[in-house]
Amino acid sequence: MAGVILFLTDYGLDDEFVGVCHAVMAAAAPEVRVIDLAHGVPPGDVRRGALSLLAAVPHAPPGAVLLAVVDPGVGTGRRAIAAEAGGAVLVGPDNGLLSPAWEALGGVDRAVEIDAASVARRRVSATFHGRDVFAPAAARLATGVALEEVGRPVDPGSLARIDLPTPRRQEGALGTEVIGVDRFGNVQLGARPSDLGHSGLLEAGIAVGLPEQTFRCRRVRAFADLEEDELGLLEDSAGWLALVRRGGSAAARLGVKPGDGLLLSWPAWDSAS
Amino acid sequence: MAGVILFLTDYGLDDEFVGVCHAVMAAAAPEVRVIDLAHGVPPGDVRRGALSLLAAVPHAPPGAVLLAVVDPGVGTGRRAIAAEAGGAVLVGPDNGLLSPAWEALGGVDRAVEIDAASVARRRVSATFHGRDVFAPAAARLATGVALEEVGRPVDPGSLARIDLPTPRRQEGALGTEVIGVDRFGNVQLGARPSDLGHSGLLEAGIAVGLPEQTFRCRRVRAFADLEEDELGLLEDSAGWLALVRRGGSAAARLGVKPGDGLLLSWPAWDSAS
Amino acid sequence: MAGVILFLTDYGLDDEFVGVCHAVMAAAAPEVRVIDLAHGVPPGDVRRGALSLLAAVPHAPPGAVLLAVVDPGVGTGRRAIAAEAGGAVLVGPDNGLLSPAWEALGGVDRAVEIDAASVARRRVSATFHGRDVFAPAAARLATGVALEEVGRPVDPGSLARIDLPTPRRQEGALGTEVIGVDRFGNVQLGARPSDLGHSGLLEAGIAVGLPEQTFRCRRVRAFADLEEDELGLLEDSAGWLALVRRGGSAAARLGVKPGDGLLLSWPAWDSAS
Repeated sequence: MAGVILFLTDYGLDDEFVGVCHAVMAAAAPEVRVIDLAHGVPPGDVRRGALSLLAAVPHAPPGAVLLAVVDPGVGTGRRAIAAEAGGAVLVGPDNGLLSPAWEALGGVDRAVEIDAASVARRRVSATFHGRDVFAPAAARLATGVALEEVGRPVDPGSLARIDLPTPRRQEGALGTEVIGVDRFGNVQLGARPSDLGHSGLLEAGIAVGLPEQTFRCRRVRAFADLEEDELGLLEDSAGWLALVRRGGSAAARLGVKPGDGLLLSWPAWDSAS
Repeated sequence: MAGVILFLTDYGLDDEFVGVCHAVMAAAAPEVRVIDLAHGVPPGDVRRGALSLLAAVPHAPPGAVLLAVVDPGVGTGRRAIAAEAGGAVLVGPDNGLLSPAWEALGGVDRAVEIDAASVARRRVSATFHGRDVFAPAAARLATGVALEEVGRPVDPGSLARIDLPTPRRQEGALGTEVIGVDRFGNVQLGARPSDLGHSGLLEAGIAVGLPEQTFRCRRVRAFADLEEDELGLLEDSAGWLALVRRGGSAAARLGVKPGDGLLLSWPAWDSAS
Repeated sequence: MAGVILFLTDYGLDDEFVGVCHAVMAAAAPEVRVIDLAHGVPPGDVRRGALSLLAAVPHAPPGAVLLAVVDPGVGTGRRAIAAEAGGAVLVGPDNGLLSPAWEALGGVDRAVEIDAASVARRRVSATFHGRDVFAPAAARLATGVALEEVGRPVDPGSLARIDLPTPRRQEGALGTEVIGVDRFGNVQLGARPSDLGHSGLLEAGIAVGLPEQTFRCRRVRAFADLEEDELGLLEDSAGWLALVRRGGSAAARLGVKPGDGLLLSWPAWDSAS
């Protein structure tokens, strides 16, 4: 199987940036297939990019190159890196963007700092390393060359990491954060089903905003378990807890956006599993 | 020729949903080519998705798999189906989304209800059947396996259908509906040129809104037949009647959006062909 | 290496227009690879389309077909053309869209007016020549057929051209225009670093708007040279001068949009190189 690159950026699709990176990769490695993972990461939002990349990890073809560029530090001293983890290769800026993905893959086995001058096909610009550094490096790596062909080894322990969101557990409550709102208005929370601490939860209160507003939701497995327009709490397709609303936008109902805090609570009698 | 999948959803391109489906298909069937038809169908708008899919049917490569997911009923009891029609294979939820396409292809020859557990590569989520059911089924079908390999036969007559819009004919008038507004402001109507009933129409009145506003348009073949800024009525590239404006947005001029009703009328003396 | 098409339009990605063009090309030339360069060119904005295409030229795979459709004159008398320049093939409407690209490629060697009836796979619509004329012509040319197979020769000197923006030089100042604002708020100017006339510039004033507002910016090579939130003037990745702001949108700070005029000025003592 020819190499596959999964490609994620915050470049958007209105300009030619993503297309030019594709052209660079097609020129450097015509036999490699490049799959657009997403390019609508909010500009400079490293954590959202990291979460999108993480969501793709379980579904990537074996041996794929994960090329991710959300790079507010382009043209500063931050390193460009390539790393091997769990049979995959990750390429991007050393700003933590790649770290949740490689942790899900079992940790970094080897890493290099990409040598821009050796991978670039032309003069390296000061502002577009996706085109000039990361895409050419990913293309070469996807053809199967060794990591050391694109840079010099660095200590995996020296690579930047970002922390995944973690909720605050309290008695009968969970303080968490909105980490994403998708096109359908589903509200992804920075907490896992296991953070609820028990599997018997039937119903929860939701407190958000200032002044605080409260809502009720039902713990369900699927949209089918909800009445039309009812709020539910379920495990989403990436394994996060999510607030959803059947037939409408939960985010609009709750008035929340990414970054907002939120408290889930439940009565004591609802905690037996 | 290796298999081709045409892929349409309402997932949008900001999140990684479409990209993850591509990853799943690339892993399951590396030799299959996947073409993005459109992913900007308004969330849950089954009819708009059906119309976009229908518009692609005449242009699909022979034997293509048409994979369409606009699925407000995900996680409810609706079936996941695959159907053969006119040499093509259609895959999607059983909610009518596929029906205009298969009707244009001459009707369903055979159909199966997809067996999610057998096509899924991992645990089937309750909210993302595009990734877990439809994409893997489409990938397998695009490699040429028989329909029965992905599910058990169902009666084609039992499949959900949606009706294409039909206009109301009156003497010297046609009541119709805006079924789409494209990026250029062209207003697609739920009526065909043949619904006008005669080919000699030169000019029509347009009545829209409450309070009603009226406009005039000229029946033309192409933008070139219009003066700058003039409204015209023509057959669009998908075979629907459309209201257009040379050098600007007809939708903005008329103040209409999808779903709005609209009356075209013409004087008696303008009906000789 | 199989043929490669770089594909740029103003169709947007919400509708199925781009996807249908892909389907047409896949049906006509299954072995050709089609790379989306950009489809978010503002509707009818020929100059912006031309600039996006130009930015891709240095990065296109050798021998690529550049297919560009920004075509406000569709269905009028404008010609559909294909041209060879510098080993590449350009396909699109004869409205100047392709001219900056072919000039960067060294000028047109040969050109034809595309014969719509001979390349079209179906009846040619009056409104969608991307699907019916340009895509099929590009697909055939990408398989390696001669230019004359898709139309009859025309004099390259007869092809429409657009002028790239040029700044007005004054003593100690440069009058220029905003030619693009990207997703990050970087402000692309219609001027090249060489237009500054000297390489020693350290700082410049920026005058914009009515009533006029003034700002200061520093001439830098990269974002790293700026303080957080500071405005800078640098050479962007396409070789244009651009106003940028570290950690934020320069366009928002300056209150500018494409088409706005802008005066850069510097004191006499800042002109020694």
